[in-house]
Amino acid sequence: MESDLRIEAALEQVVAKTTASPCPEHLAEAIRYAVFPGGGRVRPGLCLAVAKACSDGEPALADAAAVAVELLHCASLVQDDLPCFDDAPLRRGQPSVHKRFGEAVAILVGDALIVMAFNVVAARVDSHPGACAKILRALAEAAGAPAGIAAGQAWESEPSVDVAAYHHAKTAALFEAAAMTGAIAGGGDPAAWRHVGILLGAAYQVADDLADATGESATLGKPVHQDGNNSRPTMVESLGIEGAIRRLDQLLDQAMQSIPKCVGRGNVEYLLRVSAERLCPPKLRTGEFTPKSADSTERTG
Amino acid sequence: MESDLRIEAALEQVVAKTTASPCPEHLAEAIRYAVFPGGGRVRPGLCLAVAKACSDGEPALADAAAVAVELLHCASLVQDDLPCFDDAPLRRGQPSVHKRFGEAVAILVGDALIVMAFNVVAARVDSHPGACAKILRALAEAAGAPAGIAAGQAWESEPSVDVAAYHHAKTAALFEAAAMTGAIAGGGDPAAWRHVGILLGAAYQVADDLADATGESATLGKPVHQDGNNSRPTMVESLGIEGAIRRLDQLLDQAMQSIPKCVGRGNVEYLLRVSAERLCPPKLRTGEFTPKSADSTERTG
Repeated sequence: MESDLRIEAALEQVVAKTTASPCPEHLAEAIRYAVFPGGGRVRPGLCLAVAKACSDGEPALADAAAVAVELLHCASLVQDDLPCFDDAPLRRGQPSVHKRFGEAVAILVGDALIVMAFNVVAARVDSHPGACAKILRALAEAAGAPAGIAAGQAWESEPSVDVAAYHHAKTAALFEAAAMTGAIAGGGDPAAWRHVGILLGAAYQVADDLADATGESATLGKPVHQDGNNSRPTMVESLGIEGAIRRLDQLLDQAMQSIPKCVGRGNVEYLLRVSAERLCPPKLRTGEFTPKSADSTERTG
Repeated sequence: MESDLRIEAALEQVVAKTTASPCPEHLAEAIRYAVFPGGGRVRPGLCLAVAKACSDGEPALADAAAVAVELLHCASLVQDDLPCFDDAPLRRGQPSVHKRFGEAVAILVGDALIVMAFNVVAARVDSHPGACAKILRALAEAAGAPAGIAAGQAWESEPSVDVAAYHHAKTAALFEAAAMTGAIAGGGDPAAWRHVGILLGAAYQVADDLADATGESATLGKPVHQDGNNSRPTMVESLGIEGAIRRLDQLLDQAMQSIPKCVGRGNVEYLLRVSAERLCPPKLRTGEFTPKSADSTERTG
């Protein structure tokens, strides 16, 4: 797909620049390792699909927003795998970044990716100041505190968890930013697209909980039984497996219905349909999954 | 001093916003703990001194740049203290952030501070797009890879170290950004001020090595004997203590001489004179220091 090529090319460009001389060799290698090969690139895919739905008037700006969103996602994965978080030895079938390069370098990769995310958009401020101001703020809200990824991960260290705030900050916030920054870059109204992102993000959170509880991790590429091991509140815990599947379908329906009227809505509808299949494989619906053992640490996607 | 008050007030404002509801309580507390009370606030002080020297035409923008520089510095300190870096239990006489709040929260504080740094400048893009574009890029260069703080800390994980690149990235890059962003915000020429920052940063690096080697850490608020313990290349190792003191004086002289002609250069000269006293206390010059034991982990500043 054309969007996939755009995303990889744009990521390649920013990674090449950041890892150029005089970048220390291990850090350069680790940054590249954290970004390539990617997982589903769902968040930048959403960003570009929304930009296209809004006419994609400024493709270079949309690419910058998509790259920024994906870099923030990659940073969060590197951190999630660290010993003091999920302590995951594998990611996408390979040793996780800290297993391969050490904890110190992994933490620095996280920093470098966050800085890259802001820098790739900052590079467009001169040509698109108004849009970039909005994109930078949306990225900051999605990545930091009080309600972005840093806050989402921090809820796991709290004695008492605000479950709605936790799930929104940890997962939905970046989907929200993906949809909004795509709209901003494409010349659309970010407020009109915000809920498409939030709902798809919430669906990913439910699917994540389902995958974790059932061991059906191959499709999502997430670790299994981490929530139970870490006593995190999950949608499966509150709704049961069938209830969680119903909630997932409901969220995807609502996301579909919330797509604003626009010429290019087909792109976003397609992305949501693909997501629906990806998030809830048929055997999960029919109960044909095979629960894996609780000590499995495989990360395949 | 008026600059000190401006810096604290601007930091207070951004920290209050980031730690507001729905920020998880421990993360909010840890962010505040990492920023207040500060150390010398030397980098934001340099930023504002340069902005004033350039007429300080846009004080709110200069404050944003100064805050951003200080937040990046605070983030680097939180990370430097982590077990996989310096493993320092104390900072400014208090438990370091990870000792008080745990490693996970400390890592997230680092993320949140970096995001805040970019966000505080992004908030000014609408009113000052050209200046903010330059400030954001200078911050990204100072914080990330290939030659900012992330790269500087990463050199410590390399089997072979490019000492000049290491020292510049770890310390001088943020001083460089402080001087340049101050100039940009103040309406001056960043290229003309760049070397003042680099030279003062290099002086801090030498002073840091001297403090580490001699145990005279009280003035700088840095850990002692970390370089030797961690086999890092230092200026004391290459020049000896007296040679390092001569080099420090030389760098401060050069910094003073490199101040561009401008109406408000008195501010920057004053800052450099204060730095000189701070960086090399009289008893270090006369050899009257008392080396501390190599296992000292006190951090007082």
